[in-house]
Amino acid sequence: MGLSKNVSTFIGFDNEYDESNIVVFGSPFDGTTSFRPGTRFASSVMRGESYGLETYSPYLDMDLEDKAIFDAGDLELPFGNTEKVLRKINKFSKKILKDKKIPLMIGGEHLVSLPQVEAVYEKYKDIYVIHFDAHTDLRDEYMGETLSHASVMRRIWDFVGDNRIYQFGIRSGEKFEFNWAKEHTYLNKFNFNGLKEAVEKIKDKPVYITIDLDVLDPSVFPGTGTPEPGGVFFNDIMDAIKTMKGLNIVGADIVELSPHYDQSGVSNAVACKVLRELSLII
Amino acid sequence: MGLSKNVSTFIGFDNEYDESNIVVFGSPFDGTTSFRPGTRFASSVMRGESYGLETYSPYLDMDLEDKAIFDAGDLELPFGNTEKVLRKINKFSKKILKDKKIPLMIGGEHLVSLPQVEAVYEKYKDIYVIHFDAHTDLRDEYMGETLSHASVMRRIWDFVGDNRIYQFGIRSGEKFEFNWAKEHTYLNKFNFNGLKEAVEKIKDKPVYITIDLDVLDPSVFPGTGTPEPGGVFFNDIMDAIKTMKGLNIVGADIVELSPHYDQSGVSNAVACKVLRELSLII
Amino acid sequence: MGLSKNVSTFIGFDNEYDESNIVVFGSPFDGTTSFRPGTRFASSVMRGESYGLETYSPYLDMDLEDKAIFDAGDLELPFGNTEKVLRKINKFSKKILKDKKIPLMIGGEHLVSLPQVEAVYEKYKDIYVIHFDAHTDLRDEYMGETLSHASVMRRIWDFVGDNRIYQFGIRSGEKFEFNWAKEHTYLNKFNFNGLKEAVEKIKDKPVYITIDLDVLDPSVFPGTGTPEPGGVFFNDIMDAIKTMKGLNIVGADIVELSPHYDQSGVSNAVACKVLRELSLII
Amino acid sequence: MGLSKNVSTFIGFDNEYDESNIVVFGSPFDGTTSFRPGTRFASSVMRGESYGLETYSPYLDMDLEDKAIFDAGDLELPFGNTEKVLRKINKFSKKILKDKKIPLMIGGEHLVSLPQVEAVYEKYKDIYVIHFDAHTDLRDEYMGETLSHASVMRRIWDFVGDNRIYQFGIRSGEKFEFNWAKEHTYLNKFNFNGLKEAVEKIKDKPVYITIDLDVLDPSVFPGTGTPEPGGVFFNDIMDAIKTMKGLNIVGADIVELSPHYDQSGVSNAVACKVLRELSLII
Amino acid sequence: MGLSKNVSTFIGFDNEYDESNIVVFGSPFDGTTSFRPGTRFASSVMRGESYGLETYSPYLDMDLEDKAIFDAGDLELPFGNTEKVLRKINKFSKKILKDKKIPLMIGGEHLVSLPQVEAVYEKYKDIYVIHFDAHTDLRDEYMGETLSHASVMRRIWDFVGDNRIYQFGIRSGEKFEFNWAKEHTYLNKFNFNGLKEAVEKIKDKPVYITIDLDVLDPSVFPGTGTPEPGGVFFNDIMDAIKTMKGLNIVGADIVELSPHYDQSGVSNAVACKVLRELSLII
Amino acid sequence: MGLSKNVSTFIGFDNEYDESNIVVFGSPFDGTTSFRPGTRFASSVMRGESYGLETYSPYLDMDLEDKAIFDAGDLELPFGNTEKVLRKINKFSKKILKDKKIPLMIGGEHLVSLPQVEAVYEKYKDIYVIHFDAHTDLRDEYMGETLSHASVMRRIWDFVGDNRIYQFGIRSGEKFEFNWAKEHTYLNKFNFNGLKEAVEKIKDKPVYITIDLDVLDPSVFPGTGTPEPGGVFFNDIMDAIKTMKGLNIVGADIVELSPHYDQSGVSNAVACKVLRELSLII
Repeated sequence: MGLSKNVSTFIGFDNEYDESNIVVFGSPFDGTTSFRPGTRFASSVMRGESYGLETYSPYLDMDLEDKAIFDAGDLELPFGNTEKVLRKINKFSKKILKDKKIPLMIGGEHLVSLPQVEAVYEKYKDIYVIHFDAHTDLRDEYMGETLSHASVMRRIWDFVGDNRIYQFGIRSGEKFEFNWAKEHTYLNKFNFNGLKEAVEKIKDKPVYITIDLDVLDPSVFPGTGTPEPGGVFFNDIMDAIKTMKGLNIVGADIVELSPHYDQSGVSNAVACKVLRELSLII
Repeated sequence: MGLSKNVSTFIGFDNEYDESNIVVFGSPFDGTTSFRPGTRFASSVMRGESYGLETYSPYLDMDLEDKAIFDAGDLELPFGNTEKVLRKINKFSKKILKDKKIPLMIGGEHLVSLPQVEAVYEKYKDIYVIHFDAHTDLRDEYMGETLSHASVMRRIWDFVGDNRIYQFGIRSGEKFEFNWAKEHTYLNKFNFNGLKEAVEKIKDKPVYITIDLDVLDPSVFPGTGTPEPGGVFFNDIMDAIKTMKGLNIVGADIVELSPHYDQSGVSNAVACKVLRELSLII
Repeated sequence: MGLSKNVSTFIGFDNEYDESNIVVFGSPFDGTTSFRPGTRFASSVMRGESYGLETYSPYLDMDLEDKAIFDAGDLELPFGNTEKVLRKINKFSKKILKDKKIPLMIGGEHLVSLPQVEAVYEKYKDIYVIHFDAHTDLRDEYMGETLSHASVMRRIWDFVGDNRIYQFGIRSGEKFEFNWAKEHTYLNKFNFNGLKEAVEKIKDKPVYITIDLDVLDPSVFPGTGTPEPGGVFFNDIMDAIKTMKGLNIVGADIVELSPHYDQSGVSNAVACKVLRELSLII
Repeated sequence: MGLSKNVSTFIGFDNEYDESNIVVFGSPFDGTTSFRPGTRFASSVMRGESYGLETYSPYLDMDLEDKAIFDAGDLELPFGNTEKVLRKINKFSKKILKDKKIPLMIGGEHLVSLPQVEAVYEKYKDIYVIHFDAHTDLRDEYMGETLSHASVMRRIWDFVGDNRIYQFGIRSGEKFEFNWAKEHTYLNKFNFNGLKEAVEKIKDKPVYITIDLDVLDPSVFPGTGTPEPGGVFFNDIMDAIKTMKGLNIVGADIVELSPHYDQSGVSNAVACKVLRELSLII
Repeated sequence: MGLSKNVSTFIGFDNEYDESNIVVFGSPFDGTTSFRPGTRFASSVMRGESYGLETYSPYLDMDLEDKAIFDAGDLELPFGNTEKVLRKINKFSKKILKDKKIPLMIGGEHLVSLPQVEAVYEKYKDIYVIHFDAHTDLRDEYMGETLSHASVMRRIWDFVGDNRIYQFGIRSGEKFEFNWAKEHTYLNKFNFNGLKEAVEKIKDKPVYITIDLDVLDPSVFPGTGTPEPGGVFFNDIMDAIKTMKGLNIVGADIVELSPHYDQSGVSNAVACKVLRELSLII
Repeated sequence: MGLSKNVSTFIGFDNEYDESNIVVFGSPFDGTTSFRPGTRFASSVMRGESYGLETYSPYLDMDLEDKAIFDAGDLELPFGNTEKVLRKINKFSKKILKDKKIPLMIGGEHLVSLPQVEAVYEKYKDIYVIHFDAHTDLRDEYMGETLSHASVMRRIWDFVGDNRIYQFGIRSGEKFEFNWAKEHTYLNKFNFNGLKEAVEKIKDKPVYITIDLDVLDPSVFPGTGTPEPGGVFFNDIMDAIKTMKGLNIVGADIVELSPHYDQSGVSNAVACKVLRELSLII
């Protein structure tokens, strides 16, 4: 009898596509990163490093083995052509949604959230977005470009509109971004205060969660392009995930792990654990 | 007049064997490490790096210069033969105990605790074990092996029995391990709550302390084989040590520093300071 | 039309000398460092890395663009001749003070504070010094040398005298240093308790602030010569800076970033943000 | 239509088992490594990094796309039990040979060659072994252990016997090992002189090739457990492989890449290219 | 008297624009890099590290102090928009050429050569290009993109045409690229053989030199995106530069230093020295 | 029976002082280093890493076990006071010489050679110095300091005088240094040509050998303060040592290993092997 080919998935994400209700995939794109690139390596590194994890979460008392999750591997994305990349992600997210599954994307830089939120929005016009990040990401353009990691939440606002985006942990941005946010999003500086109230308010709505891992303090998560001191700790994000349990999550992503900037491997472990917990509450 | 040979000890552990009541030694073994090996380098690195420390502790207002501690260097352990290694450690711990001194071992991986606790148990049948760790270490076997870093507390339970092991800071393990613990050990998840009560309860008993340094959050201590985000901070372990002052400590170890995974040297500094404080309360 | 030469300054410190009231400069000296050298690289690395920052501070709701700060680059300091180095720094600080500007120095090791505080003291005899550090720095000599990073606060005490130095975050030193401090300085162990009261007390006096960045926990700031676990977190120092807003600051420095010991770049980001906040309150 | 699971193979090794005549697999074992462990990570890292390679070799003017190679992934090997590991490898190599395919193993440490050469020897009693290495590996035991990376060629000699082993590039060992070799193997110090003659002599025989990558100079290949300065350069090993083209190779391995010790990734690239070239001449 | 702003140039490139005949500038772009990004940091890192160099070359017995070279700093290039980046570089190169100076660009990835060669070609239609590289760079497209680092020499061929490009050191590419080269360029595999003859042949023509530093063996130059073992050594490139002395060089670049992938700093030193020597022969 | 204290020596240097004829010691000083400091760590790192070596040299067919070498450990040197450091080294070298032993020093930066050569010169006025280095080290002063690593050979020339210093491998310096050398030393650029003739000429004289390890190419030896591409390879220095066998060596040193700049550990291995070979020919 022959042997079968070597399969590589994130730990516990070992179901077949058809039997799964969550589909995980990687979008290895970092083309608009302005400071230190390298988030393209995140998803493949996370698959390998996830075997340092257990499938059981003592935080949630839940186990990945009780979930049905499929890992589709990484999209093949061209280099140097931002628009084509976004179209490809959008198309893939749509296929997942059409198959009545929930897309859970691993970035890549934050701009990859845009095409997936667009795909989700097409299906759920009353979507709410919960956004964890160190940065506002609300610029209308960055160095002349409107498609930029620094503009991603502004581009999402373009179609979801006012009061649909909840921002937490924000601690860096231009002054005008903070001012703009006052009228268009719910922006919470520095920490996750107000998350419980937000969850209460939107508990009956379809929700998209986007976690830019640089919301974590760089002591916890150094492996990212633009480390911003002053962030939240690991247990804060564990608490946040527990708080969001029960929401009607219709799509999600975690972005901005840049593994080469943390040679201790700790950032990889953090990203893997956040992904485990996040996928357990979907 | 001739010169004498170059002696290398941990800072302040510069007494002669006969005049000392604590004997420090290294067990450079990492043969059952399942993820990232390298704890074999811990003890020799710590000796060198300890010279960045002071002998005085402002936490305890005590000074190593007022203690009588001997540093025996590292055991010579063969590679690839787990049982022989454990026998060698056991024999050495026994010698120290027979000479009416307290053995304080630097790992190596966590499995090295087993032969030393066995030696101590032989002398003190009513021993209690205080165990700081990120991991349960309670599997009956790991990939078919019963002698494994992932089974060390289970092996110790084999002889100390029920309700003799206090576990703190645990945040990773299989579901069945957490369940098993409910009936056999005192397991405290995530933090050090309950330590004070435990200390109160066993203050007249002989106590063994085993500190797996990965109980610390990887932001504080990245230099370890299996970093587990969500751990305690440095001041938590300082407080724990202060809390344990006054116990009848008859043996101890600190394990799982893997220096090559933290090139900033911070993990070495953390391990050295924990060792200083621990040796001050013995 | 020709092009002008490539100018390199810290972000937002782009004013001309004559129109500025704060002058930033680097003193790349680490000649008395006893453990791991390399702080000589701090100021030039910080200039480059500062472009990962925004000029706007959401902590203080202030913007560097509203300040008038000049970046003079680095002093050229000889190697191996401590006294000549100190004279050169002293002379430069004096020039800035004479031009009625406030000197803000980037070290270098902590000894570089000495000649600048001397220059400031010459102008303001009633100066108070607020000192953030992991170490007492109060030895009268270190290995026979009186000019040492380990003696810098003692040397400053030589001329400012008793009860003029407030020390915060201290967690390492010889026993006799802690004892000496009881009669000569205000030393606060481990944290920033008591800062508010100190600020209240000296709010009408000229104040010099010296921030040894190793006051931060090494999880936050690993890139330093002598990492001392048990320090304060980033938000603690942000709070401290906010607390000191309104003081009459007549000189300041931040010292002891050693960039090569943190290859994640996080320590650089921390140092840059502390410098931004510090310069905003002057 | 559903999606299929994410497959991970070395570049170009994408054939099905049944249609392939070479079977590549990893043996992630480093349990007897005496200095710096970590070769367990080699095979999985090489799969990921191989995508920096082309399938075409300008050295041989051959292309992996014209070969039929299957990548079986890694064996699951227990930790801390050397004998069980060797049995598992032996069994797997035998299966491949029984299916009339050629086993090409990626270590792991050098001891993993032993069980595979045993399997090959069982089928081809007149086997010759070509051995590239910095080290003699001819000790009868190491620290009391007869199963050790430092004894692997001696153990192989136990069954293949005198004058069946050609050793090249050797530059480190005990004096008695070099002396022993004079009567039992063909040992060539420092370089590959004599390879052409050896190839000529055994060109009609079944040949096993074992490449300990530390035969390369550490400037070329720093990512190994025991770097030995004074080795051959990359083009030397390319030439050696070309020289061996046409031999009747019935089994092979490359061992001793320890990826974490070379954070530039260069050693990974070297190992991948050697594997590509080696697989092209089989 | 006031102080002037901090100027930062490559060592010895300290002339004013108008008095210089060579203009150095950086193009920090790595947007089409397919493997490991990071060449965007090369030019600014090289300015800082160049102070480890002397201005005098014992290879050429020439001194930068006898040359008139201006360092314009780095172009500000947007992220994620390849075409706009190329236009900006092209415009800047044209300005330099119009001012009758020679442009010497520091990449960035290899694609940045395209717009500068276009600018030079516009002025010198009979241009010849000498190309040092590990890679053919002759693909017509890469993952659907015609503007790619893997296509740069093909794009240059589009306008300079057949037999105008000399390629040296090539050791990686698709088979069809090597075949294509046979009819369109002079491609020399692995080394610099044939350079002397080429120089002889085009000594009266305008010549553009593009040095992709990955032509060097990764042992010499690990700090690059796609390390290709089997390259030339440092002295080979020193000899090549000496050989090209006397050519009518009308433009040049060195590209593909990715400093973060070599934390020893050696690659930076290599790049700086190649730039010094190259600028000395222009 | 008690245990004895933990002794730490370089491998094979385990004789008692009185029975040895060579005395090895470390001078951990890097106070005048102008670029990247850190050579202070060399000697202690080398002791630990030397256990990756064998005591037998296949290059020389000699074994450290047949030599009588004592390792005195490191001198305790103050920080920031160059003159005091030099006096301390000088005094120690003199003691060794007075006891009729040969001093073999491990730096530290190159300036540490000065006091030892002075000590040797006092005993052997007709001393010759063989100097391996990338740098001329012939400046009369550096930034105003006459005691500098960049001036060490000039300071030695001050007392040994003309035509007593043979320099090999030199590839960096100011133009005037190369010119000055023409009349005062035998300077051989780039390589070791001429060494055989020099050895022939001075074979009856007392000889001091100083090896600045940066004479090696940085591909071989990246762990140094000022890497200079274009150096010799490892086998060149092995050959050089063999060539010098038979000389009347009355003192020697190896300097400028800076271990933190090479995290692969290869530079440590190189330094250890050079020290082993050098000590074998004394």
